[in-house]
Amino acid sequence: MSVLIVGSTALDSIKTPSAENPRLLGGSASHAAIAASFFGPVKLVGVVGEDFPKRYVQLYRKHGIDLVGLQNQPGKTFHWAGEYEINMNNRRTLLTELGVFEKFMPHLPDAYKSSPFVLLANIAPSLQHFVLDQMRRPKFVVADTMDLWLNIALDDLIRLLKRVDAFVLNDSEAHQLTQSDNVFTALKRIHKLGPRYVIIKKGSHGSVLSSPKGFFLCPAYPLHKVVDPTGAGDSFVGGLIGHLAAGKGSVDRNIRRAMICGSVVASYCCEGFGVTRTTRVRRKDIEQRISELEDLVRF
Amino acid sequence: MSVLIVGSTALDSIKTPSAENPRLLGGSASHAAIAASFFGPVKLVGVVGEDFPKRYVQLYRKHGIDLVGLQNQPGKTFHWAGEYEINMNNRRTLLTELGVFEKFMPHLPDAYKSSPFVLLANIAPSLQHFVLDQMRRPKFVVADTMDLWLNIALDDLIRLLKRVDAFVLNDSEAHQLTQSDNVFTALKRIHKLGPRYVIIKKGSHGSVLSSPKGFFLCPAYPLHKVVDPTGAGDSFVGGLIGHLAAGKGSVDRNIRRAMICGSVVASYCCEGFGVTRTTRVRRKDIEQRISELEDLVRF
Repeated sequence: MSVLIVGSTALDSIKTPSAENPRLLGGSASHAAIAASFFGPVKLVGVVGEDFPKRYVQLYRKHGIDLVGLQNQPGKTFHWAGEYEINMNNRRTLLTELGVFEKFMPHLPDAYKSSPFVLLANIAPSLQHFVLDQMRRPKFVVADTMDLWLNIALDDLIRLLKRVDAFVLNDSEAHQLTQSDNVFTALKRIHKLGPRYVIIKKGSHGSVLSSPKGFFLCPAYPLHKVVDPTGAGDSFVGGLIGHLAAGKGSVDRNIRRAMICGSVVASYCCEGFGVTRTTRVRRKDIEQRISELEDLVRF
Repeated sequence: MSVLIVGSTALDSIKTPSAENPRLLGGSASHAAIAASFFGPVKLVGVVGEDFPKRYVQLYRKHGIDLVGLQNQPGKTFHWAGEYEINMNNRRTLLTELGVFEKFMPHLPDAYKSSPFVLLANIAPSLQHFVLDQMRRPKFVVADTMDLWLNIALDDLIRLLKRVDAFVLNDSEAHQLTQSDNVFTALKRIHKLGPRYVIIKKGSHGSVLSSPKGFFLCPAYPLHKVVDPTGAGDSFVGGLIGHLAAGKGSVDRNIRRAMICGSVVASYCCEGFGVTRTTRVRRKDIEQRISELEDLVRF
């Protein structure tokens, strides 16, 4: 079944201790859509400006991504610039130029409104609400977020949680939202806010799922070298929803392996700047790392 | 086969945000020996003073621990006092009174010298050397350590690494020793120092084994509440060597499950002050959590 992904489409200028890469293809929806595309058809909703390079449109197309919902607006594409510290965990924002993203309204083409699987990638919760308002009874909705929205749009986010099946956030966001350091306490408190599936991401330490069928400890694929972690979280949720939509049977049956798929695509994402490594991945590369993970956790 | 465990035997006064417990049974060898005792016979080498409570000797005996090597010296038992911060990760030392531990020399009773499995629990590397100097061709030697020895006895420790089969340390110690943030790079550099098996512990994030048969990602058993993490690392290595010694077949065949056993005993350790929870564990409790871990990582 097809997946609808709504989020940001951006140009990222990224500096690491070893290199600098301007105007890469970035944004939560870009990373997530490319990640999901390895598993099945993807519809993308986002907005780009007149400066958005044609080669990035071609890159989306190469991944079979349906771009009917990609808006082209007069003005500049959302441009973010950031710099990573030597351990690649801490980063600081150098520049945020919203451009056409400032007035982005994620209007859905009619054909998108009945998509069974929906990923509300990281954008303002009000826009995530706006997407759901247009949908016709989706089968499964996953929402991602970031600390910014906890800080400036908490009420919108709390309301959103009552409308989604699965909520994905990282450990520091979970701590901020629930005031608990303990992952179980945090999961329990987030369930009370609405979602039946909660996933807390812990970066290189993997992620934890709490679901109606219990907990799952999902390993991160261990990397020898991290080149650029930007978009790893987006790739994780993209791979997750992509596998869920492609899978036969229930979400409960598929969600563990879906997280593993997300984890593997995220690992490839970290091995190159922007989406440069991810877009060179073949399905068999994903299978290879899934099978390595199976061996890594076997006992 | 029996296990020889050499390390510190101490009284721990521990303060957490919610409680304070003076003069608990503590020390690396105490935690490790009790943990190992669930899997098979254990011989303990340590030193205690005249103030060492008889009930703690009885506790060792209840676990079937051979105490021929436990030295009783005139003077006071090693006494450590520490306080945990609210997140239970950071702790500070309030008091260290070495007492009889200051002049401790781990002389081995003759019957101990041919123990096939040896755990050099956390003590000064010079004392760990002293133990190995007395041994008759042990089958498998595991060494644990702490940041203190990296700071004040690095040369001794580096020499020790050429004499042991397995070396266990935590992630911050691995970083300090290898100057690498990447766990693979750190593991590779530690292998070059000698040990064929290296385990990096990551607290609640589990541990990673690098061995001749590849890597293993060992989960931590996830806890709803941590009461006192003191001794968790010692319990981990204790459970590890206990299961290794009890297992049929090669170390390579058994080491993954041995880490899981260590992880489970460490989880119980964290659920009570000192060894209070660990000593109430039954073998079937351990099996229960092993089977839960199997389910938690299945995909």
